Amino acid sequence: MTQSVGIVTPQKIAFETPIALSSGVTLPRYDLMVETYGELNAARSNAILICHALSGHHHVAGRHSQDDKAPGWWDTMIGPGKPIDTDRFFVIGVNNLGGCHGSTGPSTIDPATGEPFGSTFPLVLVRDWVETQARLADHFGIRQLAAVVGGSLGGMQALRWTITHPERVRHALVIASAPKLTAQNIAFNDVARQAILTDPDFHGGDYYRHGVVPRRGLRLARMLGHITYLSDDGMGEKFGRLLRSGEYKYGYEVEFEIESYLRYQGDKFSDYFDANTYLLMTKALDYFDPGRHYDGDLVPALREAQARFLVVSFTTDWRFSPARSREIVKALLDAGRDVSYAEIESVHGHDAFLMEDAPYHNIMRAYMNRIDAEVNA
Amino acid sequence: MTQSVGIVTPQKIAFETPIALSSGVTLPRYDLMVETYGELNAARSNAILICHALSGHHHVAGRHSQDDKAPGWWDTMIGPGKPIDTDRFFVIGVNNLGGCHGSTGPSTIDPATGEPFGSTFPLVLVRDWVETQARLADHFGIRQLAAVVGGSLGGMQALRWTITHPERVRHALVIASAPKLTAQNIAFNDVARQAILTDPDFHGGDYYRHGVVPRRGLRLARMLGHITYLSDDGMGEKFGRLLRSGEYKYGYEVEFEIESYLRYQGDKFSDYFDANTYLLMTKALDYFDPGRHYDGDLVPALREAQARFLVVSFTTDWRFSPARSREIVKALLDAGRDVSYAEIESVHGHDAFLMEDAPYHNIMRAYMNRIDAEVNA
Repeated sequence: MTQSVGIVTPQKIAFETPIALSSGVTLPRYDLMVETYGELNAARSNAILICHALSGHHHVAGRHSQDDKAPGWWDTMIGPGKPIDTDRFFVIGVNNLGGCHGSTGPSTIDPATGEPFGSTFPLVLVRDWVETQARLADHFGIRQLAAVVGGSLGGMQALRWTITHPERVRHALVIASAPKLTAQNIAFNDVARQAILTDPDFHGGDYYRHGVVPRRGLRLARMLGHITYLSDDGMGEKFGRLLRSGEYKYGYEVEFEIESYLRYQGDKFSDYFDANTYLLMTKALDYFDPGRHYDGDLVPALREAQARFLVVSFTTDWRFSPARSREIVKALLDAGRDVSYAEIESVHGHDAFLMEDAPYHNIMRAYMNRIDAEVNA
Repeated sequence: MTQSVGIVTPQKIAFETPIALSSGVTLPRYDLMVETYGELNAARSNAILICHALSGHHHVAGRHSQDDKAPGWWDTMIGPGKPIDTDRFFVIGVNNLGGCHGSTGPSTIDPATGEPFGSTFPLVLVRDWVETQARLADHFGIRQLAAVVGGSLGGMQALRWTITHPERVRHALVIASAPKLTAQNIAFNDVARQAILTDPDFHGGDYYRHGVVPRRGLRLARMLGHITYLSDDGMGEKFGRLLRSGEYKYGYEVEFEIESYLRYQGDKFSDYFDANTYLLMTKALDYFDPGRHYDGDLVPALREAQARFLVVSFTTDWRFSPARSREIVKALLDAGRDVSYAEIESVHGHDAFLMEDAPYHNIMRAYMNRIDAEVNA
């Protein structure tokens, strides 16, 4: 039995100071949905911010009620005695601005109109999220985070934190991430977006007022996403060419188990996730490019950083392959930064960052112990 | 200036003998659209059958008129003095049964109803195509083909020929192909199919009578297909993160050049290709598994073969990687067959099999010279 943080309660925190976003739009106010686990120490030096990926949120660990079916999305990593140990750290989970889990986003009612923002909600960049998260740290009276931790798009936020607020991050844990998307990464995102944008139920992003959701598009986007989260080998081990009924049916119903799995994932996702948030998150991924203002060179950008880094990648991850993590490591070294790097053997592709695995968790635990020794001394 | 076969004219050949398909359905008759280049020799021993891939057809080389904008899809490979030399071989291009370029398929008028077949057109397997192609060889009075040649799904047809009609194939050239699809391959196909099947304009496959086509679905399917035809590196070299307008626009219009390319490819394809044919072709891919009746073992299946083989793969092809071609080679060797294998360095991914490249063409040319020496002696 692994320990859990137990029953947790999210809180909605209101930010009434306007925020000027990278897109040029200013939001007069916004809410962030947040969960915290563990206790902030007297020096306020033991806070760990967890940044979520494309479809994540603030509910990172524990359960919302006794009969909650599943725990938070990173419950294997975070809890008492776990690699990110809530007996020693104050852990903050936040749903990013633009999300669909309680933070202000496209599906939120715009007080100016009394209708959901929909198509009028601005695009939000990784640097904007970092700004809202910095204000969240202010809210808790935290001057410096012990660590910012994230996988995938979450890792990009950790990286951006170290550049934008160098003095406010002691450590950055950048997992299964990349310094910027490749053309292929953008291409996958664009197919997913086009599936949503061309769904007749999208209505230019204002589907709320039509009482529909672009379910078909969102379902396709998620099915495609899932292919890129799993490895070819992992899918082969789990599904191979297994047939649903044991024989060919010669039709378009589910024939292979992999089809059943993907369609189920797509259906489930389209029941609860907001399409505008999905679009916005994929654009944040596309735009992320911290070296952009230095002719595409990450090194000068990272010279700003003061944090120390742990970079982790997984061998069969082809969405953000180990080569992409090594680009980050190389840039950090060239910028004179302190970086540890681990490449974990795994068959689980990109999804490996979410899964329980002894070598991976041992590395995370060892690194967190080092942070503990610094901040809880 | 490379030589061309010049102006070519397709012919529609009627087959009035019923064909019992693998799905259990019998078609009473069908037409095949065909082009031929070069001359059949007196011994009728110099015929080369070209099998097409997912979106291919009978128009393999030459042009249909002086002002035809583009030549046939494999014009770089086939023509006078080219690797498949029409001065020495009689080359046959055929649009497969179920196609949408003149052969009987879902968009053909069903004489029984006076309406397009649509949803009533049966699924067709690779082995069914081979049967129709064998009848096509009969039509030309050809007992044995000098070679069956194909890339991707075309390579699967070449492989199937050697098993089903061992005595009728002298050589099989299996290029950028695979012995069967992986779960990931099937997954990509299923996302493409779901895009078409859930398009409101699909109408269960009978969109013809509604005067619409499921353009959105077909466009998404093609966009996704294109990602898998190109390599990550190739896309990076060609498009990278190049912006259409030089700066971020913060919207869902084309931002990166790769988006423009994919959307253009999708739009173009959805203008001319039939959605039911696309569905049917992807299912033929999924079902192909010549080792299936031998507990998934390709070796006993290939023991039937008498042909000699050339297997070719391309280093950056991740749709059907070199490892998949090596599976074929290994099975052929274990079955005691004669096989040559070439792994070509290329940045062009799966698409490399369609492109002009000296090392690739030199290998094809050398192998074809060997066939020439045998059949035109």
